[in-house]
Amino acid sequence: MKTRVTELFRIDVPIIQAGMVWTSGQKLAVAVSEAGALGLIGSGSMKPDVLREHIRKAKARTKKPFGVNVPLIRSDANELIQATIEEGVSIVFTSSGHPGEFMEQLKKAGCTVVHVVASVKHARKAYESGCDAVVAEGFEAGGHNGIDEITTFCLVPQVVDVVPIAVIAAGGIADGRQMCAAMALGAEGVQLGTRFAATLESSSHERYKQAIVDANDNSTLLTLRKVTPVRMIKNPFALRAQEAEARGAKKEELLELLGSKRERLGIFEGNWEEGEFEAGQSSGLVHDILPAGEVVRRLMLECDAMMERIQATMR
Amino acid sequence: MKTRVTELFRIDVPIIQAGMVWTSGQKLAVAVSEAGALGLIGSGSMKPDVLREHIRKAKARTKKPFGVNVPLIRSDANELIQATIEEGVSIVFTSSGHPGEFMEQLKKAGCTVVHVVASVKHARKAYESGCDAVVAEGFEAGGHNGIDEITTFCLVPQVVDVVPIAVIAAGGIADGRQMCAAMALGAEGVQLGTRFAATLESSSHERYKQAIVDANDNSTLLTLRKVTPVRMIKNPFALRAQEAEARGAKKEELLELLGSKRERLGIFEGNWEEGEFEAGQSSGLVHDILPAGEVVRRLMLECDAMMERIQATMR
Repeated sequence: MKTRVTELFRIDVPIIQAGMVWTSGQKLAVAVSEAGALGLIGSGSMKPDVLREHIRKAKARTKKPFGVNVPLIRSDANELIQATIEEGVSIVFTSSGHPGEFMEQLKKAGCTVVHVVASVKHARKAYESGCDAVVAEGFEAGGHNGIDEITTFCLVPQVVDVVPIAVIAAGGIADGRQMCAAMALGAEGVQLGTRFAATLESSSHERYKQAIVDANDNSTLLTLRKVTPVRMIKNPFALRAQEAEARGAKKEELLELLGSKRERLGIFEGNWEEGEFEAGQSSGLVHDILPAGEVVRRLMLECDAMMERIQATMR
Repeated sequence: MKTRVTELFRIDVPIIQAGMVWTSGQKLAVAVSEAGALGLIGSGSMKPDVLREHIRKAKARTKKPFGVNVPLIRSDANELIQATIEEGVSIVFTSSGHPGEFMEQLKKAGCTVVHVVASVKHARKAYESGCDAVVAEGFEAGGHNGIDEITTFCLVPQVVDVVPIAVIAAGGIADGRQMCAAMALGAEGVQLGTRFAATLESSSHERYKQAIVDANDNSTLLTLRKVTPVRMIKNPFALRAQEAEARGAKKEELLELLGSKRERLGIFEGNWEEGEFEAGQSSGLVHDILPAGEVVRRLMLECDAMMERIQATMR
């Protein structure tokens, strides 16, 4: 399947594995890239030196393209980007912030830059600041989320209508039917987080992976809207946060409840009571922990099968 | 295009116009059915006698199939169903309640029964109670909404996986790309509300129709979660309700704020300050007030074009 996304990254299939904290180190990124898709090292839970180490290992293990995701809210975002450039990675996905600030630096280094957006306004801004593509991520996505609650189904076509660059759909995608649907919405590629979190190569805790597998359609919630909206599995911590939100807790109280290191506690340490188990609504469609390469292969098979089925409906 | 949905209702194209309060009287339903899709008279804002009048007029104006939508929370739901059966309508869409209660009566009268659901659990229940199809409606839908906030993109495939009956996708659909995407998710038909609300034949107020046309991706919100979650355009009333919710207002306060007749005030009377302007996130994709038949034709053209484009990607 050829689209502007496969051309931009020189990959075989238009599938991207999202950068995820405590989940997508070099091991996962390499497995995905080796399968012909694009793996991303998620620097969100890494210090710059750790990121350098991951990049070096990945370079030693694959000749295929891979990228780094950098959350721009990090106070040391500049150092993470510096490390990425210096280690010779030329694909950078930025999120939660303004990519314009770093564009000159990234472009000078020859990087392809993609920004994650959750609204048409931010897609337009990303395009105007020089991004090569955007990821349009809907409300159903796991982890940190936009404040506008626009769903993948409504966001993707509206973004496609306003920016001339390639649009990558994200949020809620776990299988090939959905990949086919995303292409119908006008996307030229898909980015999946939760599906790749539940793989053998994901560095997250087994309990977290199993929680994704056990989830059904109704197992996640979005809360902490006054702080940073986040979607996670309904574990005891998530329900406490939701209860506080429902009774109108102010930002300060929510920040205190959130504290720090909740993501590490949940995703990496598997603490069901106290951690954040960030996952998207697509977790209801994840039924097994698979090798990441197998996820890529199944996505393509399912997507092809659905395309053929649609073709048959037309006759 | 032939699916179980076109066969079930004996229609030409698998498109259904949602039953909407103060919007979908016989005029809209007839226009949609005459175009080869399925029009629904929305009885939610009608007394049984008014419903009878609408059915009689529709019968006089078209020989094509049309249906009636009955919200089962109405205290006089039984009388609405009785009126529907007695006036000889054999397609009934039920929503917000348990269709099982009325199934024997409806089936005895030879009706095809479809229930609107917002979760896998309710889809299974609807199937088990004898429904012929289900509408799987996502979080992006306008008006009254499920409490689980599951989006169309995630809900439809999960419902398809558990019920053997046909699934109709709803929530956020306004154009043919999205119709094609819904089919890729496994749906065999689509139901559209907001797109049909902004048509010439819709009985809603011009100011309401224009608000849909003027909307962008970020113009609606979902609020009143503690009462009945409802999605509407961000007018002064909607923002007041959202503010009350954010500060933790209790159910009683929200009920008082809501009062009564907000839907009529907004949708039918066009009161921007005080009314509810119920609309889905798809309103950002509605750019003109069209004849309803033209909406049906464009949907099919756009859906066909996207199917061909997808076919081309495969080669």
